[in-house]
Amino acid sequence: MRTVSLIINARWVVPVIPKDTVYDFYSVIIDGKEIIDCLPTKEVEGKYTSDTVVDKLHHVVMPGLINMHTHAAMSLFKAFSDDKKLIDWLQKDIWPAEAKFVGPEFVVDGTKLACAEMIRSGTTCYNDMYFAIDEAAATSSAIGIRAVHGCGVFGFPTSWAAGPVECLEKNRAFFNSHSRDNDLLMWGIAPHAPYTVPEQYIVAAKELARESGVLFHMHVQESEAELKDSISGTPSSSRHLSEARCSPIENLWEKKVLEHSVLAHCVHVTDKDIELLARAEAAVVHNPSSNLKLASGICPVQKMLDAGVNVCLGTDSACSNNNLDMFMEMRNAALLGKVASNDPQACSASTVLAMATVNAAKALGLEGKLGAVQAGMRADVIAVDMDCVEVWPLSNILSHLVYACGRSQVTDVWVSGKQLMRERELTTLKMDELRAIGEKWEKILREFKAGKE
Amino acid sequence: MRTVSLIINARWVVPVIPKDTVYDFYSVIIDGKEIIDCLPTKEVEGKYTSDTVVDKLHHVVMPGLINMHTHAAMSLFKAFSDDKKLIDWLQKDIWPAEAKFVGPEFVVDGTKLACAEMIRSGTTCYNDMYFAIDEAAATSSAIGIRAVHGCGVFGFPTSWAAGPVECLEKNRAFFNSHSRDNDLLMWGIAPHAPYTVPEQYIVAAKELARESGVLFHMHVQESEAELKDSISGTPSSSRHLSEARCSPIENLWEKKVLEHSVLAHCVHVTDKDIELLARAEAAVVHNPSSNLKLASGICPVQKMLDAGVNVCLGTDSACSNNNLDMFMEMRNAALLGKVASNDPQACSASTVLAMATVNAAKALGLEGKLGAVQAGMRADVIAVDMDCVEVWPLSNILSHLVYACGRSQVTDVWVSGKQLMRERELTTLKMDELRAIGEKWEKILREFKAGKE
Repeated sequence: MRTVSLIINARWVVPVIPKDTVYDFYSVIIDGKEIIDCLPTKEVEGKYTSDTVVDKLHHVVMPGLINMHTHAAMSLFKAFSDDKKLIDWLQKDIWPAEAKFVGPEFVVDGTKLACAEMIRSGTTCYNDMYFAIDEAAATSSAIGIRAVHGCGVFGFPTSWAAGPVECLEKNRAFFNSHSRDNDLLMWGIAPHAPYTVPEQYIVAAKELARESGVLFHMHVQESEAELKDSISGTPSSSRHLSEARCSPIENLWEKKVLEHSVLAHCVHVTDKDIELLARAEAAVVHNPSSNLKLASGICPVQKMLDAGVNVCLGTDSACSNNNLDMFMEMRNAALLGKVASNDPQACSASTVLAMATVNAAKALGLEGKLGAVQAGMRADVIAVDMDCVEVWPLSNILSHLVYACGRSQVTDVWVSGKQLMRERELTTLKMDELRAIGEKWEKILREFKAGKE
Repeated sequence: MRTVSLIINARWVVPVIPKDTVYDFYSVIIDGKEIIDCLPTKEVEGKYTSDTVVDKLHHVVMPGLINMHTHAAMSLFKAFSDDKKLIDWLQKDIWPAEAKFVGPEFVVDGTKLACAEMIRSGTTCYNDMYFAIDEAAATSSAIGIRAVHGCGVFGFPTSWAAGPVECLEKNRAFFNSHSRDNDLLMWGIAPHAPYTVPEQYIVAAKELARESGVLFHMHVQESEAELKDSISGTPSSSRHLSEARCSPIENLWEKKVLEHSVLAHCVHVTDKDIELLARAEAAVVHNPSSNLKLASGICPVQKMLDAGVNVCLGTDSACSNNNLDMFMEMRNAALLGKVASNDPQACSASTVLAMATVNAAKALGLEGKLGAVQAGMRADVIAVDMDCVEVWPLSNILSHLVYACGRSQVTDVWVSGKQLMRERELTTLKMDELRAIGEKWEKILREFKAGKE
């Protein structure tokens, strides 16, 4: 008989590995930060005991969802600017507001709102690209959510650095000075995009990522113009900052940047791009809501999966979504994938569940450690309530998780064995503080907008 | 000082008419079945008094949403068959199950589940196409939701009639024998589609609709094959059952069927089709989730709106969605509309709010009576809680309603002045009964599936 820190008795466990599996009346056994067993509830007695036994008798227990592309602090800009052309959205609204406000206070406040929304919708890990990553990381790890923080690199001055050289040097110093002993934190380097960062700095960022053992995270081929103008060499604000007349992905392959990189969007890709993404074992992050909202297009997800590309899922920021809800992104990925392939069998429920869990773990280099409910995995698990009319009759649990469930059915969330939400109540964030943050920034941004007009 | 039946004091009222309007600290005054005033809360005292005053101090009060295309009873088939090719889905799964089970018991049970889900997500009126409409209507009106019940007409035998002639005769007798004095009920006649109902019966159904003063509701041009094969005359299961070599919409125009008809889908349309839809003052019902899930395509909504077509919104059945959630359909319509038009300004938040409310009222012939919070309108209103992290900061209420809110934020629902949900509790349906219905049909359908294998 082993004494463990937590036993969760579930009506169903969806382990994700093995695929297409739903266990009835199973228990998840957690000790410290790890899942140590997953077995029928009737076999627990005599084998494990714990002071903390949680019964989730109408719930699915499953791996926490992994949001592989976001800019968490931008939650403060939620609904600040919508239904605008991309160039107006960026140049008239977002960039001026960022230039004025983005700094440690903005990042800490925005990260708190974003983490609250993510935990409440079953996300246990997110891959972030923004500024003030030191403050962002202190905030996310204090909240207890797992995160990868990558600093944005731009070819032009930002609030973080006067230019790309300084940005890379600051990052190098940061990676050297920060210990890696916080289980919840990982680091990344995040050149914004091939059209905003000159090629040589992208190559330098990749070298820094290799040397420092951090994630390389970049936007690539989000718009059709980025692909076409880079191939044709037509001067435009979307063309990659390289002399090469080829797709940005092809250029990244030639420059040895593609290998194991995490590439957001890849909406417009050639067949050769897809082949190179697979060969490079790069990960593509599909952001269905954001790609629609900005009228970017629809990523050919099933085609990529068929070619052996590792495709993950993300929300992008709350500014172009406007949610950080991975249940919604799973549903949208499943639905859009069918239209993109002209095939209702494309992007099945179990395929998108994998995209939001195990595929992300692989992209983070954490295969076997994250993204499934199995012995040896980190104890990042969530409980989803199935006792509601929205999922009756309970004819197919996997289908319901993707097509019918909403984020409000997520009742409990654990990360590394620590409970971050208990029966819809956040344990490490206070609603009063979050409400005050919302009120503060609603007022600041309203006055800023009025001042511009 | 007038004594009224209900005063709702709201933090915000979104009246929908006028467009793009958010009233701060407003009250909605309801007497009996009607809204009689909408005015600043501070002006209520001395003007109106009521025994029932409801404070919704963190809420938006707005018109209830109108689901213009569904097959409510099919909620029993939710997740019964997913990720299948359309023809396998229909022929191997749905039609055999319908042949075995669809009758009054199925329709009553399914209608209860569907109405519960619709009310919980803020829908106050739905336009239904199915069988056993007498039982369906008795069920919906007992629940207290507003509904249009239209009986499906097919060219082949169904559970309702041996063929189209009998079906139309039964409908004529039904319309003649049923009184029209139930404020919650409207009737329709619903030929399934141009490829399942021979042209002459579609024409006869339209004549019956005109004579009887009921709605004409049909699926049209859902698939690309339906358009192409009808134009080319290529024999196929999708081609319209007419000798005319033109689009089904063009043929309906020629045969005088198009005027004021409600046409679900219209995903694949010619420019001439769009022009005819506008001239005929027909209403198109856009069903974004269903069109994606069955890989039908993306309806060119903004193009239709620009041409003067009245476009409404629907969920289709829970079998091809798998939700009956108009908040999700509003969001999907706004997002997909942008990609369809390659323009992030297409299908703005206020445009899709109109699609889900006033446009539907117009399609139902209830302009000025439904779809807005104004004096003289039916008191079909909902309250949406904005006191949650998902909508902080509260920078733009209209944007949040479409892009950020989820159905679980709907707290209260009134139809014709009667409260159907109070602080998330349904008042006319019992969760225990709904759970039992779900369990019953989950078991029946599981055994049916096992028996087929």
